[in-house]
Amino acid sequence: MGEWQINKCLELQEKAQNLIPGMTQLFSKRPDLFSLGVWPTYFKEAKGSHVIDLDGNEYVDCSCGGIGATVLGYADEDVNRAVANVVATGSACSLNPPEEVALAEKLIELHPWADMARFARSGGEAMAIAVRIARAYSKRDVVLYCGYHGCMDWYLASNVEYPGMVNKELLGFSSAGIPKAMGGTAIPFLFNDVESFRRAVKAAGENLGAIVLEPIRNFAPTQEFMDAIHTVARETDTPFIMDEITAAFRICNGGAHLKLGWQPDVAVFAKALGNGYPMSAIIGKRKVMVAVQDTFTSSTNWTERIGPAAALAMIEKFVRVDASTHMMAIAKRVKDGWEQLGAKYNQDVHVTGSTPLWHLGWNTPDDSVNRAFYTQEMLKRGYLAGGLFYAMYAHTHEEIDGYLAATEEIFAMVEKYRGTIADRLIGQPAGKGFKRIN
Amino acid sequence: MGEWQINKCLELQEKAQNLIPGMTQLFSKRPDLFSLGVWPTYFKEAKGSHVIDLDGNEYVDCSCGGIGATVLGYADEDVNRAVANVVATGSACSLNPPEEVALAEKLIELHPWADMARFARSGGEAMAIAVRIARAYSKRDVVLYCGYHGCMDWYLASNVEYPGMVNKELLGFSSAGIPKAMGGTAIPFLFNDVESFRRAVKAAGENLGAIVLEPIRNFAPTQEFMDAIHTVARETDTPFIMDEITAAFRICNGGAHLKLGWQPDVAVFAKALGNGYPMSAIIGKRKVMVAVQDTFTSSTNWTERIGPAAALAMIEKFVRVDASTHMMAIAKRVKDGWEQLGAKYNQDVHVTGSTPLWHLGWNTPDDSVNRAFYTQEMLKRGYLAGGLFYAMYAHTHEEIDGYLAATEEIFAMVEKYRGTIADRLIGQPAGKGFKRIN
Repeated sequence: MGEWQINKCLELQEKAQNLIPGMTQLFSKRPDLFSLGVWPTYFKEAKGSHVIDLDGNEYVDCSCGGIGATVLGYADEDVNRAVANVVATGSACSLNPPEEVALAEKLIELHPWADMARFARSGGEAMAIAVRIARAYSKRDVVLYCGYHGCMDWYLASNVEYPGMVNKELLGFSSAGIPKAMGGTAIPFLFNDVESFRRAVKAAGENLGAIVLEPIRNFAPTQEFMDAIHTVARETDTPFIMDEITAAFRICNGGAHLKLGWQPDVAVFAKALGNGYPMSAIIGKRKVMVAVQDTFTSSTNWTERIGPAAALAMIEKFVRVDASTHMMAIAKRVKDGWEQLGAKYNQDVHVTGSTPLWHLGWNTPDDSVNRAFYTQEMLKRGYLAGGLFYAMYAHTHEEIDGYLAATEEIFAMVEKYRGTIADRLIGQPAGKGFKRIN
Repeated sequence: MGEWQINKCLELQEKAQNLIPGMTQLFSKRPDLFSLGVWPTYFKEAKGSHVIDLDGNEYVDCSCGGIGATVLGYADEDVNRAVANVVATGSACSLNPPEEVALAEKLIELHPWADMARFARSGGEAMAIAVRIARAYSKRDVVLYCGYHGCMDWYLASNVEYPGMVNKELLGFSSAGIPKAMGGTAIPFLFNDVESFRRAVKAAGENLGAIVLEPIRNFAPTQEFMDAIHTVARETDTPFIMDEITAAFRICNGGAHLKLGWQPDVAVFAKALGNGYPMSAIIGKRKVMVAVQDTFTSSTNWTERIGPAAALAMIEKFVRVDASTHMMAIAKRVKDGWEQLGAKYNQDVHVTGSTPLWHLGWNTPDDSVNRAFYTQEMLKRGYLAGGLFYAMYAHTHEEIDGYLAATEEIFAMVEKYRGTIADRLIGQPAGKGFKRIN
């Protein structure tokens, strides 16, 4: 334990702070969210569920699983075989990769309500295309949405203030850099809150152009909520876009909407789709998807070959090994473990999210300190861990045994040292929400 | 010659038309731009400057070089060594790739006026981030631009009509799917046209928030034009964004602005940066770049490791082998060859673009027919070719000898069969601009 140090990681982190505003390209991979000064931040190798940081420390990754991207595990052998093959035989060309046609076919096979597909490489840009398609189809501008959908203009526009603004309570992002004229072009509403949805529909009026939702949040959708969405979408001929970026390929073989009863017109995939290789997809009904031809969506980098090759291999394996069942079992053990150990050691903890993506927090003012301490002590014990657990197929039950045993040690310490945990931190308390690193 | 057939290519193309609206993810890779029914559309292997299509036909690729992405050539050995290494040791993780810090450092070393970098994976999304940063810095909304900058909302917004609209003549895209409220948030102007620029500046008024340009178009920028842009940017403290997506890593080791005399505040790279692996970068002065922290830009897929690893390897090799000098020489031969052969065989052709990216066309009504015939006959002779030539480092002078010899044969045929070329087409005449495939 005394051996554990992350000098190289911290040195590179300092360099990054000076060179990269915000330090990372993904908010959720900022070290301050875990514990600045302790979180290793940079990796050298990642294989299965194991990660080696820049200083050579090896961990079992029981944190965010590449923020949900590496659903099968890191450097998965089957996905890597497909990727290595296209790297060796050319991943880019003046011609197109045939794999994208096969992937379109496969996604439509898994989602029989859909007819056509388009591809991009990031989730946020795929959502921007989906919204563009919906607006081009409906010829109406206002998007009603619920949940998180990336960082593109159409979405952040909802935070630009305008007269008669509704559902202000949902705003969390800044509107800096978004044209003020976009105020009112995106209106938020609350999940499972039919009244909030109706307020947004009323505010959009004749200009309702798209409805955007994640299929599941901290709880499953109610039938009443789904009925309300489906009815408005159908009656107004407004495309209903299901953002499956986080949810897909977890609870079933494809979009979570398949299992939950949602009936979208368009669905968007990223994260798990490429198992860590950049890939995103927009699928939908023909009548809506062809509207992409009325507008302009085009990018050189959307035509490379690793993305669709990785996605095809991911899907083939995910279905073949029934990855969902294993991940759900693994995640359930972690949730149950946190709750049981919390009760055993008098920790007032809560678990939010939905299987197999869970978040842990303390309902007390020392939440930030406790999460940082938990991370720090888990790192020393060989676990990359913190206030969240995203299951990967690569996680074994033996690893979860060890993870929960280590968690128990630390929960016991948190009880024993109550009130003095802050003094025992090597790094900073864990962050939450948005703040500047540099 | 009689052996050449592309049945598998055409079969997949038919399937794609049914599954993917627009057939490809990049407008410039649509087969109808070359000759529908003849252009192979799909590749099986690509190595160096050679491409094998889905039917097994092998070509020297003298067309678009992956639309400028594969600057060194396909499956470049040095880039692939770096990529294969990160594939094997994990390309995604809950932690960040150290390579992105090294890439930030390298890009700033090549562009000493810049201090910081951010990364994305496609060119269009990188431009959207650059514009977001600029607007967040200036706190003003109107973007003045010249040239092509992808497909994101900020850019297509310039085609939404509004009262007092200026420079209407520049519009080429549809505004379908773009909120009408965005009218006037982006205003185009003409390259090297100071008056056009001043009209746009006047129309933006107090709300001028960013200026966006490509460094070079069909001709180099005049000193007067550059002075006008620099002066307005400086006097109004408006970020000047140089879109280097197409131009960078061709005429010199980095952005073309380094050689042309531009002085941007922000520069954006994609295409050549990853040599075909999806990667894009935004670099800029510290005072502007830190504004990214006031807004929200974040994506899981921007944190994978292939992109920065490929970019580092591309830059190292590009500089080491002096790729620019070779590409410029190769491209000059093609341009000179087209012009000389055009004169020799009484073809009224024009060559547009700038070294090393050239476009060929006929100044006559049979332009579409002649380009399609040229493509068809070149394919039969083992060249992937058409009305453009993008040089790659992998192109050899021997290949250009063969390419020009084949071109001469076909120019001679075009002269000999003048008036009956349309009857000799296997496929469709070559397309131009935007039209629907399906």
